[in-house]
Amino acid sequence: MRLAAAFSLIAAFFALLLSAPASAEDGYELWLRYRPVEPAAAARYHPHASAIVQQGDSPTLEAARAELERGLGGLLGRTPPRVAAPADGAIVIGTPASSPIVASLRLPLEPLGREGFLIRSMRIGGKRATVIAANSDVGVLYGAFRLLRLIQTRQPIDRLDLADRPRVELRMLDHWDNLDRHVVRGYAGLSLWDWQSLPRFADPRYTDYARADASIGINGVVLNNVNSNADILTPRFLEKVKALADIFRPYGIRVYLSARFNAPMALGALDTADPLDPRVRRWWREKADEIYRYIPDFGGFLVKANSEGTPGPQDFGRTHADGANMLAEALAPHGGVVIWRAFVYADTGADRFAQAYDEFHPLDGRFRDNVIVQVKNGPIDFQPREPFSPLFGAMPRTNVGTEFQVTKEYLGFNTHLAYLGTMWEEAMRADTHARGPGSTVASVVEGRLFPYTHTLVAGVANTGNSRSWSGSQFDQANWYALGRFAWDPEASAREVAEEWARMTWGNDPALVGPIVEMMMGSRQAVVDYMTPLGLHHLMATGHHYGPGPWVDDLPRRDWNPTYFHNADRDGIGFDRTTTGSNALAQYAPEVAARWGNLATVGDDYLLWFHHVPWTYRLDNGRTLWDELVVRYTRGVDYVRRMRRTWAGLAGKIDAQRFAEVAAFLAIQEDEARWWRDACIAYFQSLNGLPLPDGYAPPEHDLAWYKAIQNPYAPGRDQP
Amino acid sequence: MRLAAAFSLIAAFFALLLSAPASAEDGYELWLRYRPVEPAAAARYHPHASAIVQQGDSPTLEAARAELERGLGGLLGRTPPRVAAPADGAIVIGTPASSPIVASLRLPLEPLGREGFLIRSMRIGGKRATVIAANSDVGVLYGAFRLLRLIQTRQPIDRLDLADRPRVELRMLDHWDNLDRHVVRGYAGLSLWDWQSLPRFADPRYTDYARADASIGINGVVLNNVNSNADILTPRFLEKVKALADIFRPYGIRVYLSARFNAPMALGALDTADPLDPRVRRWWREKADEIYRYIPDFGGFLVKANSEGTPGPQDFGRTHADGANMLAEALAPHGGVVIWRAFVYADTGADRFAQAYDEFHPLDGRFRDNVIVQVKNGPIDFQPREPFSPLFGAMPRTNVGTEFQVTKEYLGFNTHLAYLGTMWEEAMRADTHARGPGSTVASVVEGRLFPYTHTLVAGVANTGNSRSWSGSQFDQANWYALGRFAWDPEASAREVAEEWARMTWGNDPALVGPIVEMMMGSRQAVVDYMTPLGLHHLMATGHHYGPGPWVDDLPRRDWNPTYFHNADRDGIGFDRTTTGSNALAQYAPEVAARWGNLATVGDDYLLWFHHVPWTYRLDNGRTLWDELVVRYTRGVDYVRRMRRTWAGLAGKIDAQRFAEVAAFLAIQEDEARWWRDACIAYFQSLNGLPLPDGYAPPEHDLAWYKAIQNPYAPGRDQP
Repeated sequence: MRLAAAFSLIAAFFALLLSAPASAEDGYELWLRYRPVEPAAAARYHPHASAIVQQGDSPTLEAARAELERGLGGLLGRTPPRVAAPADGAIVIGTPASSPIVASLRLPLEPLGREGFLIRSMRIGGKRATVIAANSDVGVLYGAFRLLRLIQTRQPIDRLDLADRPRVELRMLDHWDNLDRHVVRGYAGLSLWDWQSLPRFADPRYTDYARADASIGINGVVLNNVNSNADILTPRFLEKVKALADIFRPYGIRVYLSARFNAPMALGALDTADPLDPRVRRWWREKADEIYRYIPDFGGFLVKANSEGTPGPQDFGRTHADGANMLAEALAPHGGVVIWRAFVYADTGADRFAQAYDEFHPLDGRFRDNVIVQVKNGPIDFQPREPFSPLFGAMPRTNVGTEFQVTKEYLGFNTHLAYLGTMWEEAMRADTHARGPGSTVASVVEGRLFPYTHTLVAGVANTGNSRSWSGSQFDQANWYALGRFAWDPEASAREVAEEWARMTWGNDPALVGPIVEMMMGSRQAVVDYMTPLGLHHLMATGHHYGPGPWVDDLPRRDWNPTYFHNADRDGIGFDRTTTGSNALAQYAPEVAARWGNLATVGDDYLLWFHHVPWTYRLDNGRTLWDELVVRYTRGVDYVRRMRRTWAGLAGKIDAQRFAEVAAFLAIQEDEARWWRDACIAYFQSLNGLPLPDGYAPPEHDLAWYKAIQNPYAPGRDQP
Repeated sequence: MRLAAAFSLIAAFFALLLSAPASAEDGYELWLRYRPVEPAAAARYHPHASAIVQQGDSPTLEAARAELERGLGGLLGRTPPRVAAPADGAIVIGTPASSPIVASLRLPLEPLGREGFLIRSMRIGGKRATVIAANSDVGVLYGAFRLLRLIQTRQPIDRLDLADRPRVELRMLDHWDNLDRHVVRGYAGLSLWDWQSLPRFADPRYTDYARADASIGINGVVLNNVNSNADILTPRFLEKVKALADIFRPYGIRVYLSARFNAPMALGALDTADPLDPRVRRWWREKADEIYRYIPDFGGFLVKANSEGTPGPQDFGRTHADGANMLAEALAPHGGVVIWRAFVYADTGADRFAQAYDEFHPLDGRFRDNVIVQVKNGPIDFQPREPFSPLFGAMPRTNVGTEFQVTKEYLGFNTHLAYLGTMWEEAMRADTHARGPGSTVASVVEGRLFPYTHTLVAGVANTGNSRSWSGSQFDQANWYALGRFAWDPEASAREVAEEWARMTWGNDPALVGPIVEMMMGSRQAVVDYMTPLGLHHLMATGHHYGPGPWVDDLPRRDWNPTYFHNADRDGIGFDRTTTGSNALAQYAPEVAARWGNLATVGDDYLLWFHHVPWTYRLDNGRTLWDELVVRYTRGVDYVRRMRRTWAGLAGKIDAQRFAEVAAFLAIQEDEARWWRDACIAYFQSLNGLPLPDGYAPPEHDLAWYKAIQNPYAPGRDQP
């Protein structure tokens, strides 16, 4: 065969391949895209990815190898074969227990704990090898994902000596998914769990979900909404739950369920759910035993009790501790935990800010060892910016975990680009002063400040059955970041953003730089155009889509935006100092002093803690009113700049994802302006003040904004 | 470069390509998969697909060419270039109006009508060419899809002389999609229309939806649920509707809306919706004018009035004709139509079967020319088998169209394999005898029996945001078949199944044969295991998931299964003869005589029209009871056989789709047995008769089946 003929034949094949329906980039692959690296990089990586040596074949080790094959095959164009003994360039994976080779290396695995891993370039029997070793198979899986990430982000892998372990024990996603697949606060379609076809049909997407979670170290998943339905505990559903647990197990993920506190009544077994009633205790013990028969490694229960109408121990004159301990007792023989949410507030007239602390602080030390109190990132809810909850650092004798919201209920839904890594970094680095300076929230959550028996970081998931999982390309970054901050609460938001951007969009510096810059300022932009200077909870009712600062007619006082901003002709803000609700007293004295003082509170939390006149002068010399207008405007301007930046990336990004982001940014700009204009129009209607020079008045009058109705906005609590 | 080196280099490239994340077959591409044909076939097709000659560049012609490029590129491995003049093997597309070349050919286009096309192999200026010509651009688009289908199904294209045109003017899909994206009777996820991100974000899926519709000739889409919400008529939504209409337009698809009859009241404009009130008439005229400003080719309104609680003209003492004509008058200046559903039944005590006829037959001749009365396939609803509606053939002076249900509300939801082509073939070929023998439903629907001014075939869509569009691979066949039967009501169900199977699964005879056989018997299997021998409407309440023949406590008599089967100790069936409701009198005398006589009614409709003793002897010698048991069992057996057949196709089908179908068939077998056993247990509890020899008793007792609750089954009318 002549050269030309060979070429021609091969070219024909080639064309055939290329012309197969293009797999358009739609975001399904998340940060696990594994697109081919540049040829020069491939040449550097090839010598370190020639084969895989795997001894032992547990499902988790098989998953680790499958991921290496998929990842290296995609990235480097060669799927490394599995071989029996190390050859030059081999990747050796395993634990000392499963792999005689790994055992023989006598690696320092002890400090890695159960889930940590070590990746080391070394010679084995004279051959150059890369060893991924751990004390457990899931550690090996995490190490495999880490090695792939190094290549995905174009790090060298020729001289590795990398050890890592998670700083938090339970790294969880809470899915607020109803049994009819409606996702509360979900902006990405229906629930991933198709209860109707479970347990018979194992949608391949369940496995891809588990892969994505494992790649960032998520090891627990609450399948159902915290506003829970007792039916999830019936055999019919437990069979379905078991099917998911079986799929997730190889990826190191345990399944948890939201338990309805009055399930013994709701399921018709008893006429009470009193946690001190022996019949109730027996019912839960037997229910736990039953669940563990289906799912031997069941994680435990998440409970939202006596909050926003859910049943709880207080219905029977008992405390949160009584309720949590009763469940914990039922789970303890099986190694399960109870995660008890601290998000509670009753219509008592007390400052809603203060209620979680008021209810839970007195219970410190009264929870069983296998209870974790899960505290929301903010004392009110999941606002664009909140001060840290005073419960962090205030419960030395109770396991306290944190709950972030990955889904953007209050940050513009899926169409607003808002990277939350910066929010979580801010929260984790906040200093509680509980044991002097440096007592960060991270140190609490990691169990370093107090010797917790369990540690927990949870995120309210943003996934759904939309093709892009999160309903937006950029919201995938928040899922990613949640995993990374759960793994390491002291992670750097910028580094996490850069990792994600490289894996998701590409390593071209002309892409990475601008994308990371967009992300890093994006959450502050939302704060600016929605709730600058410490304003909070000003969104429209129910769905929380768009502005509603004027809303004052909801049945509960502390559901109304007017309750939170307290604006009138003269001033604005919530006085939480000694002259007001004094909620600040819940913080350590240093914190209370700093935030209680107008001179030191700073701009971010000003109106969180103080009611000030519109004419109040900020450090920069502007009046509060002028500064509000400046900030609202700045937020809109930031979005406009993101649009320009994104437009400049045209041609560097695949068409479909580029267009989607461009369209979403256009929506975001519209809505940012809507927020700005509506809020300015409203506040101006109270204070009658002019806008600062050069700032455009709202496009419409206040009545126009007030008339906007969006009854079909997604994600409502009750569809 | 030496040969070996060249090979090596190319092989490396090759491996790189192959190792890119596999685009697993998940059904997204529908029957437009365009996978490479076998090399021998490619060699035959290549000489007839060398280039494309397109004169004129309307969006529709561009769509036609884009589809040819995509399709031929995929199928044949070569994307034909666009060239200016015919070369050997060129495909020439166009209309005489847009293309001087096509005009010069003086082709016999006149008989093709507006949407027909001609595909002809001929010489142009001495060059071998394939011409796709039509009177309109959309005809060309249809022709392009047809040429691709020929290749997809491996027909020769070297000597083509093919002319085709649709037999029905309006070929529509009705989406029962609510504004919150819940799809009523939807088993494929949320609505395709993401109202929240419209009009800004044009999901590429909207275009793919339009391509799929155009490929089968669908030319109208009703976007919203017939249980409609007036808000769709507000500017906020009309902007979104316009965005979809703009995307669909190049594909020959007009957008329609379900109009709420009392919209003038619901939107706060008037205190009445009386169709004879001048203010109401003006409101609708102005609303129509407004809609056409957004969408100049708006199709018109679909209306469900005075049915199951919806408002309608009868609320104001007016007739359906009064209501429809008022809307028709508003649309007429713009060329729009009103599609008025005949699915009405009041709680009058009359046989529900008879009510649509009773209400509409007297109105024949009183509807305006641009009104079409849309009649459900069955007189009751969309049961697995129904006799044709007596309205077909009974309204010579009224445009009568038909409504099929593509989504399988009563045929097992998405997880049951039930090909509906056979049902529609049966319906279309039913003889109404309205003008003597041969007066088929098809002849009515095509406007051949009576000179209708508009003709219509509509299907209630089965699409959603699930990746496979229809929530199941095999349900795509029903979408496909709906289009094909709307195009040609006399289509052959078997031919349609075979076309679809070849395009969707492959042309290997070892695949096509078994798959078509599975499909062809599948609907009868559902009839057998759910409602054999003319039973109907025996499903569980609300969601209609699973059996509920015992249900007798619903507030309306004719919502209860017991109303429909009338079973007691002695017998079963609904007497619609002269001794019963006499609904049979609504048919032509020949039909009434045949179905009214036990000797001639046949098995399929026996219990639709007769109440007979359990001991009644069928032609085959079995008692009715024994035959019921035999049929129930036969239905289950058929599903078991389908599972075996499918298992035999392992290795011939891509892994993901194969596994999904296998899992769904397993669900279907379970549920078929559930239906069989529950119904047998229930009927046996009434008649106390033994099962025929060799037939297994129900697995559980009746109480067990009655206790089954499925509150979260998908698709309910009110979520």
